[in-house]
Order: sequence, then structure tokens, then C-alpha cells
Amino acid sequence: MRIATSAGRAVLLVGEHADHAVDLAEVSDGRFGPDPEAVYEQWQAFVQWGAQATLPEGAPVEVSRLGPPVPAPRQIFGIGLNYRDHAQEAGLDIPTELLVFTKFPSCLTGPDAQVRLPSDRVDWEVELVVVIGREALAVSPEQAWEHVAGLTIGQDLSERRVQFAVKPPQFSLGKSYPGFGPTGPAVVTADELPDKNALAIGCTIDGEVMQDGTTADFIFDVAAVVSGLSQVVRLLPGDLIFTGTPAGVGSVRQPRRYLAPGETIVSTIKGLGSITTRLV
Amino acid sequence: MRIATSAGRAVLLVGEHADHAVDLAEVSDGRFGPDPEAVYEQWQAFVQWGAQATLPEGAPVEVSRLGPPVPAPRQIFGIGLNYRDHAQEAGLDIPTELLVFTKFPSCLTGPDAQVRLPSDRVDWEVELVVVIGREALAVSPEQAWEHVAGLTIGQDLSERRVQFAVKPPQFSLGKSYPGFGPTGPAVVTADELPDKNALAIGCTIDGEVMQDGTTADFIFDVAAVVSGLSQVVRLLPGDLIFTGTPAGVGSVRQPRRYLAPGETIVSTIKGLGSITTRLV
Repeated sequence: MRIATSAGRAVLLVGEHADHAVDLAEVSDGRFGPDPEAVYEQWQAFVQWGAQATLPEGAPVEVSRLGPPVPAPRQIFGIGLNYRDHAQEAGLDIPTELLVFTKFPSCLTGPDAQVRLPSDRVDWEVELVVVIGREALAVSPEQAWEHVAGLTIGQDLSERRVQFAVKPPQFSLGKSYPGFGPTGPAVVTADELPDKNALAIGCTIDGEVMQDGTTADFIFDVAAVVSGLSQVVRLLPGDLIFTGTPAGVGSVRQPRRYLAPGETIVSTIKGLGSITTRLV
Repeated sequence: MRIATSAGRAVLLVGEHADHAVDLAEVSDGRFGPDPEAVYEQWQAFVQWGAQATLPEGAPVEVSRLGPPVPAPRQIFGIGLNYRDHAQEAGLDIPTELLVFTKFPSCLTGPDAQVRLPSDRVDWEVELVVVIGREALAVSPEQAWEHVAGLTIGQDLSERRVQFAVKPPQFSLGKSYPGFGPTGPAVVTADELPDKNALAIGCTIDGEVMQDGTTADFIFDVAAVVSGLSQVVRLLPGDLIFTGTPAGVGSVRQPRRYLAPGETIVSTIKGLGSITTRLV
């Protein structure tokens, strides 16, 4: 299943190209939705319902009408330096423990968003985002996927001046300007993916390829991240985990390259679709 | 006014010693509460109502029945090294910019809580906590207090092994075990405080004084913190800001001292009351 939001209501994307939408509250007789967060709160019942639901064709959906698939998660986790090639390009050691920060939830926006650049030092980071579907505390890596609702795409936009204004650098603040968390287009359940642990991931700026990796290169894979976080924090339904970015960000290029007004980022993960972020 | 929660419902603490409670939804004819978060969403109307409300005496309140005054804030900010004496005892430079982390919201607990120690490296940090009452984006220090609902007490419990397991150290994760965010007993509006910018703040462990400072020693005071955060992040009603801790934490003492099962922390801020945290 592919769960998205439109005008603040939970919808399912249907059809061969996932480009049609049905209103979840309508097709489930009000059992799930319209509040998107409620879908994750009731994840187990929702999945049981979804396994046998017969959905109508739906109406063509304009991606510009879709919002973030989880508009108000209670917790957002970011994992730093989780791809070997990105740790290397940043000149930093490969982490042996999870490096954890947050993106403050007010930064979320949808899969076809305009984002205002607050400075000339804003960088891109395409990321696989895990959405929690069942509370998790101290779960093993083997159990971890049972607590995952699905996966979506995120852009972890990062203002590098705020990040490096303190020593040691800080992550959470400069990654949380309004609009700095584009996500979507939908939360895709793992059964829709041929290999959920090896997804091609990348982004382009105005058509030029900037990042081109695979989640098979994770230092900590999804199961390890969910399990590792849950050893400390109680993970809640609807929580988002930004799992880190592959090589190719702008701030470590020679010469350095940052985002400029008028540019468009397209972030793509195989099987999840793509999201478009227009910078103004 | 003093806003607390009891059994998940918003209550007002009344009486000379703020030891009686009235159910907010009842006394406001359902206009505010019972959902505590809704109080902050409707802050302006609530304050207007409160200025002319005549409240009954209420029933004696057992502090053990009080929960965190904001049980589910959308964002929690932590400010690092915000007292000169604490930066000095930690051997670190005085920050010239806000050092920002989060406590993940699932760690919150109430003003009379039992907290399980996950290790023998857990430290205490008494903190003044700011509660946002009106959305704030790019507000000046002069405007900042208009966006503050009130103040409460927090204990920023910190597991130092997780904190120092990565280089540079990370704050958010090790401060977010279940129960690591005791808050309360009430959100106190600034008009109840003779000098909101100079509050005696401290904590004891089993009666022994561990921290004893004043918020007059802030490097960034409440107005500077709210204004500074709002230059980046959109602050939302009900958001919490843990504003940093004065000198006297355990991990920099000679010899080092950590919390042990059976000990009790009492954290006090003049005018706000005190909170009790029992370690098990």
C-alpha cells in the first residue's frame, strides 16, 4: 500500500503508476483516516483491513496537492554519516555507534514543495525515511521490520553556516528551517518492494546527477537503525527516521556547491517514486 | 495561572500553596481542556478568559497524580552550556551561538515520577523550561516573551556513556531514555513571578545540595533563546525549551558521581515549586 495525504486527509495512491488517489476515510467507511496520524496509530488493524480491501480506481492525483505523508510525527530522528562513501567524502571516521540528531517537525513539507533558501549555504541530502507503525522499545534487529509501517523519500536540507557556527558542529538546528524536510510522495509498505534492503537512491539538481547510491551501502541498515534507536528511545507510531545520505553533497565538493534560488531538486528512490523541491 | 495535568486532563492549581486543583474543562464550561495541548493552541483566548475567571477553591491535589504539564509537545529544544559556571566546570569554551539539541518527546514524565536507570552513568541537570504559547518565527528578543505561555521545571537526565560513545559527543540520544524528561509541577505564567529573569534554581539528591544557581547567570536568557531559535525554526504552541543547567552536575565532579537506584532528586526553581524524581 501507498499512504499519502491530500488536503490534510489520508489517501491511498492506487493504479499501475500510483498516480490515482482514493480517500482513505471514504473507502474504509470512516474506520481509518481522515487524520493521517491515526493511520499509524491503528497500523495493525489497518494492515489487516488493507490486505483484503478492494479499492476503486480513484481519481488522477496531482502531486502538487500532496502533503507530507506524516504531517505531524511526534519524533523525527536523523542518522549521521550512515553511508561509507559519505563519511569518506566528509573526511570523517566510519561511525561504530549510531550518530543521532533531529529535524524539528515544523520543518516538514510535501513531495512537490517550494522552499525558501535562508542563505547561500544550503546543501542537499537525499535520504531513505523509515516510518514507524508500531511502538518499539528494545527490539532486536530481527524484530525491527515488524515495527516499520513503510518507507518514504526525504530531503534532509541542511544550512551549513548554522551547522558549523558552533564547535563541535551541530546538526539539528540548521536542518530545521521551514520547508527543510520535504517528504513523500507516499509511505510505501515493504511488500511493494522487491528488495527493501537495496534501493537505488539519488538526486538531481536541474537534471544534473548529484547523488547516485544504494541503500545496500548503509553502515547501519534499517533493521539496525530501528533496533539501535529503540534500545534508548521509545519509538512511536508515525515517527520518522531519516537514515542518512550517500556521497555527493555540495559542501564537500571541489569547488563547494550550494543551492541557488530557481534550482529544482528531484530526489528519487527506486520503488518509492520521487519528490520535487523548488528553491526560491 | 498555574496549568498542570491530572489523569491526562488540564487542571489549574489554585490556593495559596498551589496545592488544590480545579478541572479546567469544567470551570471553563468546556471552552478549554480537557486536552492539555489544546490550552496552548488557544493561548490568547485562554489568557483573556483567565484574567477574569473566578475559580472555585478546588480539591487538594496529590502531586503524585500530576503528569507532565505538556504531555505531547510537538517540539522539544535543549540548549547546551547556557550557564557560564557549567561551561567552565565542563572545561569548554563559553558558546557564542546557541548550542541546540533535542530530548525526544517520548522521554517526558511528570513532577513525581519513578525513573528506571538504564546504566550506572546517569547524571542530573536541573533546568528552567520555557513553554511556547504563540507561534514564533523570526521574532526579536523584545517580542520574545509575548510568545511564551509560561515556565516550568525540568530535569534533563543524561546518560553519559551514550553521549560520549561517538566523537564528537552527541546530546539528544542519551537524554531521551523513557522517563528522562521529568517536568512540572505546573506551567506558571510570568505574572506570577516577581523577577522572571532571576530565578533561584537548584537540586538535591537525598537532601544533599548538588546544584544551586540562578537563571540570572544565563549566557542566553529566555528572550535571547526564544528569539534565537525562532530565527531558524518555527516555534509552535506547547513546544518546550530546556534552557541549560547551572554548575554541579555529577560527571565533572572529582570524583565523578552518578545516580544510583534508591536515590531521590528534588529539583526546585523559586516561584515554580519543585519536582521529585525517584530512581529505581
